[in-house]
Amino acid sequence: MSQPYPVSEELKNFGRLLSQINSPDDLKKFPIEDLPEIARECRDFVIEVVSKYGGHFGASLGAADISVALHYVYNTPKDQVVWDVGHQAYIHKILTGRKAYFHTNRQYKGIAGFPKRSESEYDTFGVGHASTSISAAAGMAIARDLKKEDYKIVAVIGDGAMTGGMAFEGLNHIGHLKTDVLVVLNDNCMSIDPNVGGLKEHLTAITTNSTYNKIRNDFADFLNRIGNNEFGEKARKFVLNMEQGLKAALTPGAFFEALGFRYFGPIDGHDVVNLAKILKELRDLPHPKLLHIVTVKGKGFKPAEEDQLKWHAQSTAFDKITGKSLAAPPTTPPPPLYQDVFGNAITELAQEDKRIIGITAAMPSGTSLKILGKVLPEQFYDVGIAEQHAVTFAAGLATQGMKPICAIYSTFLQRAYDQIIHDVALQNLNVVFAMDRGGLAGADGPTHHGAFDLSYLRLIPRMVIMAPMNEQELRDMLYTAIKYDDGPIALRYPRGNATGMQMRKEFNQIEIGKGEVLRDGADIAILGIGVMTNNALKAAKLLEERGVSALVANMRFVKPLDTDLIDEIAARFERIVTIEENTIKGGFGSAVLEYLQEKGYSNKVCVVGLPDRFIDHGSPAELHKEVGLDVESIAKRVLAFAGIEEAVAK
Amino acid sequence: MSQPYPVSEELKNFGRLLSQINSPDDLKKFPIEDLPEIARECRDFVIEVVSKYGGHFGASLGAADISVALHYVYNTPKDQVVWDVGHQAYIHKILTGRKAYFHTNRQYKGIAGFPKRSESEYDTFGVGHASTSISAAAGMAIARDLKKEDYKIVAVIGDGAMTGGMAFEGLNHIGHLKTDVLVVLNDNCMSIDPNVGGLKEHLTAITTNSTYNKIRNDFADFLNRIGNNEFGEKARKFVLNMEQGLKAALTPGAFFEALGFRYFGPIDGHDVVNLAKILKELRDLPHPKLLHIVTVKGKGFKPAEEDQLKWHAQSTAFDKITGKSLAAPPTTPPPPLYQDVFGNAITELAQEDKRIIGITAAMPSGTSLKILGKVLPEQFYDVGIAEQHAVTFAAGLATQGMKPICAIYSTFLQRAYDQIIHDVALQNLNVVFAMDRGGLAGADGPTHHGAFDLSYLRLIPRMVIMAPMNEQELRDMLYTAIKYDDGPIALRYPRGNATGMQMRKEFNQIEIGKGEVLRDGADIAILGIGVMTNNALKAAKLLEERGVSALVANMRFVKPLDTDLIDEIAARFERIVTIEENTIKGGFGSAVLEYLQEKGYSNKVCVVGLPDRFIDHGSPAELHKEVGLDVESIAKRVLAFAGIEEAVAK
Repeated sequence: MSQPYPVSEELKNFGRLLSQINSPDDLKKFPIEDLPEIARECRDFVIEVVSKYGGHFGASLGAADISVALHYVYNTPKDQVVWDVGHQAYIHKILTGRKAYFHTNRQYKGIAGFPKRSESEYDTFGVGHASTSISAAAGMAIARDLKKEDYKIVAVIGDGAMTGGMAFEGLNHIGHLKTDVLVVLNDNCMSIDPNVGGLKEHLTAITTNSTYNKIRNDFADFLNRIGNNEFGEKARKFVLNMEQGLKAALTPGAFFEALGFRYFGPIDGHDVVNLAKILKELRDLPHPKLLHIVTVKGKGFKPAEEDQLKWHAQSTAFDKITGKSLAAPPTTPPPPLYQDVFGNAITELAQEDKRIIGITAAMPSGTSLKILGKVLPEQFYDVGIAEQHAVTFAAGLATQGMKPICAIYSTFLQRAYDQIIHDVALQNLNVVFAMDRGGLAGADGPTHHGAFDLSYLRLIPRMVIMAPMNEQELRDMLYTAIKYDDGPIALRYPRGNATGMQMRKEFNQIEIGKGEVLRDGADIAILGIGVMTNNALKAAKLLEERGVSALVANMRFVKPLDTDLIDEIAARFERIVTIEENTIKGGFGSAVLEYLQEKGYSNKVCVVGLPDRFIDHGSPAELHKEVGLDVESIAKRVLAFAGIEEAVAK
Repeated sequence: MSQPYPVSEELKNFGRLLSQINSPDDLKKFPIEDLPEIARECRDFVIEVVSKYGGHFGASLGAADISVALHYVYNTPKDQVVWDVGHQAYIHKILTGRKAYFHTNRQYKGIAGFPKRSESEYDTFGVGHASTSISAAAGMAIARDLKKEDYKIVAVIGDGAMTGGMAFEGLNHIGHLKTDVLVVLNDNCMSIDPNVGGLKEHLTAITTNSTYNKIRNDFADFLNRIGNNEFGEKARKFVLNMEQGLKAALTPGAFFEALGFRYFGPIDGHDVVNLAKILKELRDLPHPKLLHIVTVKGKGFKPAEEDQLKWHAQSTAFDKITGKSLAAPPTTPPPPLYQDVFGNAITELAQEDKRIIGITAAMPSGTSLKILGKVLPEQFYDVGIAEQHAVTFAAGLATQGMKPICAIYSTFLQRAYDQIIHDVALQNLNVVFAMDRGGLAGADGPTHHGAFDLSYLRLIPRMVIMAPMNEQELRDMLYTAIKYDDGPIALRYPRGNATGMQMRKEFNQIEIGKGEVLRDGADIAILGIGVMTNNALKAAKLLEERGVSALVANMRFVKPLDTDLIDEIAARFERIVTIEENTIKGGFGSAVLEYLQEKGYSNKVCVVGLPDRFIDHGSPAELHKEVGLDVESIAKRVLAFAGIEEAVAK
């Protein structure tokens, strides 16, 4: 593998044993007794790096032992290991040649925080969204079988990801195919937030004081005593006849067995020696099998073990013993996060309106819907990693007169696309979509960028689409959405801090399909949508310095467009710029083009937005610059479009 | 309910008992002993209507008894019954006020073939795509609980729909909510084609000579004998202690019990009296429960019972005793179906190229992929109603160098939208999407129209999108897609008969992103995509009669566009018409607009396509006329755009 990243000598030489490991082949040279020490050093390595540079945290610490055991036993990369979800894969990355530049993790131009096929041949499948690994493994297994090869396929899936419907689809298919796949269920009873669902309770029952285990033990005991003829010959014979069938029926993995898997476990996911031994045995069983391991998220770092939710990921440096933040406390409080503005606003509104139901798909923290959950638990539902269900659940609520609000990240809502069309829009039900992470999400990269939502929602009949330019407007748009009773309505807003503006307390209803001119101009018009409107305003100031007078409008609605305003602007300005943090294919700019064309206008239009390619990870500032959505790039683009080619004066 | 449909006196008075039933209230007046006769008359009614007018068939006959029993026991429409999938709901419709105009079923402006909320208050939720009912029921149940009301919620779901991941998500959530919902699993071991999956085998094991039943019976026997002290006091005490736990472990519904449901069954789904009695008992149990009924698709119509696949739906009149078609045999053979052209082409190609794997999500007949399955079973996979899994399964195959072809209806592929983006395009894997039913699907209506695919795929980076104008091009495009090794590629084609053209045997590779001019012109240019190019050609002939000379191009690619050809055309023609059988929002026409804008062209463009609304059912001809995509409407539209307002001369 080519290695384009800067090497850290310190990381390269980290750990007494780990320093000798640059590949799984190196790992395999150690005796099995060394594995606990290696796993410990891997954990320390992650703590070292994340305490300095930030990153996902708890999941990889929890998966340290299984990562070491898998690479010790399996012949990677020929054997294919798929990690689901990807943020448990740090130690996999460390063991597979990326140790020396792991400090670039999640940095711009650095290695990715998730497995990435283009980064390493050991990364067999990229997983940023959950629940995909079993399906991918099924495909790999069938390809292997058809090619008559004999390598092994392993999917490592968290109990959270296991609640996604597609994981079930994958199990169901593999159970039918009866091919050799190992699914490792890494069960820490947490995805990001505490896990929910009937299946979770089933798993908990297995791993705790379950009747299953009790019965199993009781039965073994019973058989023993029967063997001793304590109950007499008749009973002995009869019960031994039943044994075979009972054994199957008494297995704790009834759910998985029902789907055609052989279930093994539960076993301690932190006993790396035992894990390696069991994997060795399972490796050669030629059918679908599931190994249920129980782990602790954040294992090996006390603060993380004790507060798994807080330690899911870290963005600032911290003390690696105490866990205390090393970032200087801000002298002035930072502006609120958009997600918190949303969480607080829905909580305020839900107190007055009992029809309001907040729905999250396993992201109560990430969406800040937990604020609602704390204050009004009856109006809050976490459905697990199940976006499809979340949307149709909302549709069901709406049929009964409730006002459901699906708070789902822009990119995750892609998973419920058919449900939005088929269950909500077609039936014209009053469901609100609150899409967080609209636009570039930053360090999580392309799997998490909300780059497509304005386009994929715009083509759905009846869908109203709003994007606020600041926190005040986010509140007002949420309020507007709740007051709207004519069908589906969506608002999208970005990750991160809002503008810090002074906000009024009351909510104002916004007229559907109405934008506003924020700044008049004489030479050119810029139509902004969402937070990009702020960049448009700043660019207009730069343009003013260059002698170009730009009108800036906050369009607010992608659908319906404010056609009155566009009529006015089209009549006054020959040249119109549209700007959005969304793909230029089929988005807000295209909507403006379609309208102008339909009306027979001849204006020149410049559509500014995300390019038609996948965008890697990095900070929002770095990424905005890369794609030309920073203020200076916008100003340059406008000048070029206006026929003034020079750079903006500094 | 208002009743805008023509009434048939014959249907209104059909059946000795059924003629007295116009609502569930009427049904409830009959003694329970009359239910078998009523169910029989309902079946005869369906056979009567479908034998004359066509429609879905087997599913509703199979669901006759459960339909009668549910409306007999439950207080509909206050109690909410959700039908999944919708084509099992004919008898529900007959019993709820739509008997007298049921002959308009699936006809233009007639009643819909699926439940439809706007049609009747008894239609609680529209279901055309499968597996949504449990999620909708969950929402309804929570709304009821929050409103502190006490009506009942029932979801009736087929065993095919149960293989969809979202059904699992719904079960998992309801099991956790522990609220009062009844799921009726209508198990006929068939969805449309024979059902697949590990779960299906589990269900079969339950209902046939399962070890479960044997163990259960053995154990009951054992307990009896222990009760009689046959084995002595010690054994008796010990085993009785185990009984409670064992009972749970020995239940045949282990899969559902694991998710938090109480499982009942399996019972005969055609014993309507027993069904009514059991439903009455289950109705008042206040927790999640699942009733497993076993039915025969096509029950009551011998030919359909014997060939369930053939009798899933009927489009022509048939003899209602023998099942023989009454349609006159065509004097000349009709043109082949597009789906058959696809099925034959992939089979030919797969014989030469062992990397080719055809994948269907429970539609081997509908996509004609069964042709491949018959000839090359190892290169054919039916994954069940699981589009998400289908696509990521394909991605997994592609990672191992295979060439998977996902043959999925345009509208069903919406369910795998995130997988296309996240698992295929982002990783740039060589997966082919063969989208059948692109454009208006006809009598199945809005849930089945492929109205959005060109738009929702176009916004995905790296996606190549083709649409053939005829069967020859379909073959060539499939061949081109298989030869293409630079990432994802899609082709979309319509339902129904191809053009009937003479086809060459060999396959030709088409240059990616290249269209062709089919007819030159002087006044205006028409850019067609897919089969609409044929209508453009015919419209050009009409225009010629009006003295307007139109160029017609077959653009072939929505992405990448043939920009060279557009450059040429934009230079020669001031006015350009684009035409597609896809929404005008963000589709092919928008792509042309975006390109022209980007290049600074000033041409006037008229985008012709599907309007931005949901389109009801009807014949393709009726629907094309309604939306302006028939030849005459296109010609008129072009004349208006060209400034010539009069109607086309006849």
